[in-house]
Amino acid sequence: MRIRVINPNTTAAMTAVIGRCARAVAAPGTVVEAVTSPMGPASIESHYDEALAVPGLLAEIARGEAEGVDGYVIACFGDPGLSAARELARGPVLGIAEAAMRTATHLGRGFSVVTTLARTVGQAVDLTERYGVQRFCRGVHATDIPVLELEDPKVRGVIADACRAAVAADDSDAVVLGCAGMADLCHELSDEIGVPVIDGVAAATVTVQSLVTLGLRKSGRGEFASPPPKRYTGLLSEFATDGAES
Amino acid sequence: MRIRVINPNTTAAMTAVIGRCARAVAAPGTVVEAVTSPMGPASIESHYDEALAVPGLLAEIARGEAEGVDGYVIACFGDPGLSAARELARGPVLGIAEAAMRTATHLGRGFSVVTTLARTVGQAVDLTERYGVQRFCRGVHATDIPVLELEDPKVRGVIADACRAAVAADDSDAVVLGCAGMADLCHELSDEIGVPVIDGVAAATVTVQSLVTLGLRKSGRGEFASPPPKRYTGLLSEFATDGAES
Amino acid sequence: MRIRVINPNTTAAMTAVIGRCARAVAAPGTVVEAVTSPMGPASIESHYDEALAVPGLLAEIARGEAEGVDGYVIACFGDPGLSAARELARGPVLGIAEAAMRTATHLGRGFSVVTTLARTVGQAVDLTERYGVQRFCRGVHATDIPVLELEDPKVRGVIADACRAAVAADDSDAVVLGCAGMADLCHELSDEIGVPVIDGVAAATVTVQSLVTLGLRKSGRGEFASPPPKRYTGLLSEFATDGAES
Amino acid sequence: MRIRVINPNTTAAMTAVIGRCARAVAAPGTVVEAVTSPMGPASIESHYDEALAVPGLLAEIARGEAEGVDGYVIACFGDPGLSAARELARGPVLGIAEAAMRTATHLGRGFSVVTTLARTVGQAVDLTERYGVQRFCRGVHATDIPVLELEDPKVRGVIADACRAAVAADDSDAVVLGCAGMADLCHELSDEIGVPVIDGVAAATVTVQSLVTLGLRKSGRGEFASPPPKRYTGLLSEFATDGAES
Amino acid sequence: MRIRVINPNTTAAMTAVIGRCARAVAAPGTVVEAVTSPMGPASIESHYDEALAVPGLLAEIARGEAEGVDGYVIACFGDPGLSAARELARGPVLGIAEAAMRTATHLGRGFSVVTTLARTVGQAVDLTERYGVQRFCRGVHATDIPVLELEDPKVRGVIADACRAAVAADDSDAVVLGCAGMADLCHELSDEIGVPVIDGVAAATVTVQSLVTLGLRKSGRGEFASPPPKRYTGLLSEFATDGAES
Amino acid sequence: MRIRVINPNTTAAMTAVIGRCARAVAAPGTVVEAVTSPMGPASIESHYDEALAVPGLLAEIARGEAEGVDGYVIACFGDPGLSAARELARGPVLGIAEAAMRTATHLGRGFSVVTTLARTVGQAVDLTERYGVQRFCRGVHATDIPVLELEDPKVRGVIADACRAAVAADDSDAVVLGCAGMADLCHELSDEIGVPVIDGVAAATVTVQSLVTLGLRKSGRGEFASPPPKRYTGLLSEFATDGAES
Repeated sequence: MRIRVINPNTTAAMTAVIGRCARAVAAPGTVVEAVTSPMGPASIESHYDEALAVPGLLAEIARGEAEGVDGYVIACFGDPGLSAARELARGPVLGIAEAAMRTATHLGRGFSVVTTLARTVGQAVDLTERYGVQRFCRGVHATDIPVLELEDPKVRGVIADACRAAVAADDSDAVVLGCAGMADLCHELSDEIGVPVIDGVAAATVTVQSLVTLGLRKSGRGEFASPPPKRYTGLLSEFATDGAES
Repeated sequence: MRIRVINPNTTAAMTAVIGRCARAVAAPGTVVEAVTSPMGPASIESHYDEALAVPGLLAEIARGEAEGVDGYVIACFGDPGLSAARELARGPVLGIAEAAMRTATHLGRGFSVVTTLARTVGQAVDLTERYGVQRFCRGVHATDIPVLELEDPKVRGVIADACRAAVAADDSDAVVLGCAGMADLCHELSDEIGVPVIDGVAAATVTVQSLVTLGLRKSGRGEFASPPPKRYTGLLSEFATDGAES
Repeated sequence: MRIRVINPNTTAAMTAVIGRCARAVAAPGTVVEAVTSPMGPASIESHYDEALAVPGLLAEIARGEAEGVDGYVIACFGDPGLSAARELARGPVLGIAEAAMRTATHLGRGFSVVTTLARTVGQAVDLTERYGVQRFCRGVHATDIPVLELEDPKVRGVIADACRAAVAADDSDAVVLGCAGMADLCHELSDEIGVPVIDGVAAATVTVQSLVTLGLRKSGRGEFASPPPKRYTGLLSEFATDGAES
Repeated sequence: MRIRVINPNTTAAMTAVIGRCARAVAAPGTVVEAVTSPMGPASIESHYDEALAVPGLLAEIARGEAEGVDGYVIACFGDPGLSAARELARGPVLGIAEAAMRTATHLGRGFSVVTTLARTVGQAVDLTERYGVQRFCRGVHATDIPVLELEDPKVRGVIADACRAAVAADDSDAVVLGCAGMADLCHELSDEIGVPVIDGVAAATVTVQSLVTLGLRKSGRGEFASPPPKRYTGLLSEFATDGAES
Repeated sequence: MRIRVINPNTTAAMTAVIGRCARAVAAPGTVVEAVTSPMGPASIESHYDEALAVPGLLAEIARGEAEGVDGYVIACFGDPGLSAARELARGPVLGIAEAAMRTATHLGRGFSVVTTLARTVGQAVDLTERYGVQRFCRGVHATDIPVLELEDPKVRGVIADACRAAVAADDSDAVVLGCAGMADLCHELSDEIGVPVIDGVAAATVTVQSLVTLGLRKSGRGEFASPPPKRYTGLLSEFATDGAES
Repeated sequence: MRIRVINPNTTAAMTAVIGRCARAVAAPGTVVEAVTSPMGPASIESHYDEALAVPGLLAEIARGEAEGVDGYVIACFGDPGLSAARELARGPVLGIAEAAMRTATHLGRGFSVVTTLARTVGQAVDLTERYGVQRFCRGVHATDIPVLELEDPKVRGVIADACRAAVAADDSDAVVLGCAGMADLCHELSDEIGVPVIDGVAAATVTVQSLVTLGLRKSGRGEFASPPPKRYTGLLSEFATDGAES
């Protein structure tokens, strides 16, 4: 089984972290391929960033389809391009927010999300609604640490403090980490905070693996059927045509 | 006052229809500029199309900001790129689904949406939730007419029949037309069906005009503040940098 | 185009403020007629006040219909009598809470309402539900200033402080003023607070104007069709018969 | 214990039916006083009718307060004036829609409402939301029988058929009768249809009686405290002052 | 009329309190029988306790059916076994949380619940959803007093303080007591706090009495029809067979 | 890794089917132990059955804890005793309705449930609410096949027809099988119907396996902490004490 974990920003160092966390939970027979988007912003911290990251992500999905990949993880907590990716891919595609938040619902009554910039909180709240987990999500808390500074060891204490404060303020049973760049903190944070801390990269990887094992893929009918072919103009035209053909 | 009405697909004939409908309702002092997206798909009928249409739309917003445009209409019923556009623009940005559905709430208890392909129905339902109009929207009905065939005079009868059937099935007080390409049908349909029929292009144009008159623009703080500057890689990099600077 | 802005309380000084704010935003060709209800309470601060204000409001709608008025604004934040007024009127009728709260949804993710007496908070919350804006409304805050003291220059500071506190407590992007008597404070408050501040009188006036421009009026069928004629008894009988005939 | 059951329309024949049904379920020590509103429409079939019925209803509440009545039933399925009545009254006030729909929730998973004119269906739906019984209410069905024709024996078969059809269409466990004028049909319909049929007049009477027995009355604080005194102008002024004093 | 009030825990002292409170509000002709569950935990403070309390409760319902009881109250705030009890019983069955929370909706806009252990708060929140009273319930507050210590006079002050704090924090109009063991505190707390305080034991008793008076019982069709007979194995088999036969 | 799949009814033939389906999807290193509840009803088709099945299920959880089991599947579509089981178990516990419905959300916009008796539909609807999947669940359809007749080869055609009809009526993207006894039909039905068909036994098994792999278990704090020890009386007392000790 081949699972492609796509980092939809263009920062390769973050892809390395993501790949490590995905591989750590995959079953022996599963090949995890962590790839970096070929174009777009270095990090995704606004609706604008997200909009410009999606074409690169979709290019990776299209390439994966050509190469026979079995399933995909979109490794950014905004789950950018998830619906479009599901149209392109034959196998399952999971976002890390989707996977992490759904996983949290199995562990207790309520979870808190701890994320990066305050301006992304609204997007996380929208996702709780999209995935039907509003009744489980008790709060989304920003640390105001930019995505690309997450690798700095000094910020780990800030994140741990934010997790602890979130659990207390929300009376939560678990914490969901709100950025792929936090993936490798999950075990040590769980030990420190005393409640389960969930990383979406790992959660999405095992969920995709499970769906492939179950033989489940999106329906061939309706909203997520292959997109109808189109005439494309301008900058994205060559790329897009490839996508539509898959 | 300058209002830019952006057709986010690349079909200029559709832009012409849109521009005509917007100008028909603008006040004397208002200049309506209808523009066609410089890149992307010829029509938007999937999540994939939408994802590839948004960069071109944002390029037009960025250009408009450089040129001092006062407000924008996104003339596609999926309201693609609305949040990202609000980050870029200083003045108001309205989607036509947003404007049409909100307008319908002032006219009666329930409305029906009549749209193009069945695969877009889910997107319209999502928008009713996003805008808080679920309790007013009684049904979304597909005609399965592709967007680019809407100009064919033969399909007008099909649309009229779909509107009539929707009102009967949903016991609705009004109909919202679910595609910018239907904009010019709104008055004749209203006469035929006997209930108000709402075109989002016109509705969004007068709403943007009203917001500019009221002196209202998005908050400078929070989620819709200008996006933070980023390093961009690959195909979109030159374009994107321009966007982020505005 | 003639728009009648009805003050449903009987305090003429408040009507003057309301008329000024409505005229300031109307288009050149639009005639704004601000009228005071002929009967009822001097201000509306309870369900009881509202119940006794509605007959006078409806009398003004009935008179407007006889005089060929094109649309109406109900200039009290509880939107009293809105459904009954829609039954009577041929053209659009907007409440100022409805218009202000809907307008706020175009400007950001969340707004706060700042209003008068604490006992009216529940009514404002009910309206957020009725109009489908609960997900945008982050809080309703009472100043406990009675309606008729709003003209006192000393209370302006109290209102400004309440707006500032509401934005901070709710992390809001905009403020909606919760009383027609605050209409003329909107621009200075917006400058002071640094977020858009929305007055429903102005918002409703431009919305009614837009609906008339679009040629949209309530459906002739269903819930908001003209009320069936009735035999009326007692105090309201002569008045009511007039209403029912229009 | 004295319970006043107020018919808010001015048709005394309907008051007689209502009184009979209320008395049939009251406990031995409870005095049920059925009264007819002193002014307003002969029946309530529109928002307009309701608006003009409320002042007369409130006059009866005010009179009841002066006379030491312990609790009130508002015997019209739209529950007109309920919030204002609660402000005026010291003891409990129940609407018949409120009582009937709440009662139905104790009997099964879902109920249907069978009512009079189609134009009142929206109002009934609003009440399900207000009382939090949407998840129990599976449908509101109009018979299009005007309120004042309910006494005609020929319409009973139409109502029975509508109840039977509603139970089948909604797969309901119970039927709520949507008009005080249907009160006396409840037992025979229940026998005919084979599911519980609930009349709000009886349900509200026993609920008020229970609340008085429990010693429960509205809170003296907040939204339902006595309305603040006001200066009243015009037609309702003398009446209104009395109301506010109580 | 015979109403059986079942204490689903096995602590007889608590049954005595419950019986006293139920009898105090029953009408002269109503016989209230307070019974203690024949098996299960001494108090119900977890999902596990509740699961093991339900068989004993159902045994009491089955016995009551054999003895011709007219209606039942389940006197534990989690309303354990309510749906199963409704399947077994011919007459009405009410839970005390159901009755107390519904009763509170007639008294004001919002109520607070004051309960025992923090671990039961989630269960109370689930019940607000089940009964459709989320919009009325403003908070559930734990005192962390174990159920069996409620009889200790020293804890009464703690409960009074918790009620007072809840009303202030939630800006509530009423308090619902979240344990049958608090039933006898309701009047003195109401006097101390100054808002209505509702005990579910009394509220459920009068509601069952009302339903019997109205001649209303669960529908014979659908979800709450008698359970289909089954073959039972092991510990519960003899008991269960009896239950299924009734 | 040891996963115990508990059949909460007492029919061993059904346990055999369940065990086969669970083992078919477990990873090589995972030991799946399918066990039959030691007491209770032969099948679960009412709230009453469910109530009497839960003690036996909990006995199996308690035994599993004593034996070091890593995680549990409750193999009945009503997810009986799930919260109590989570209190007892150290590792993850999943219900098959929970797992199947969550899994379906990854595959498309909407799913249908096809289940056994009509009287269980309400329970399934309750679970969609509990798990936050109402917006994905478009309908629950009963076949009225009793649980113990599912093994009869003749009913397979009835189930296939029901699945096909449900997809058409609901315009669904996937089908969830609403009974553990249907587990082995999932692949052939998927082939026949042309949309993904999801069996909760398999879905729950891989989900529990994933949670154990991720090192995630319920929070030690709050609602799902071990239940407080209690004194138990009567029939269940010896068993219950054992449970509480684990």
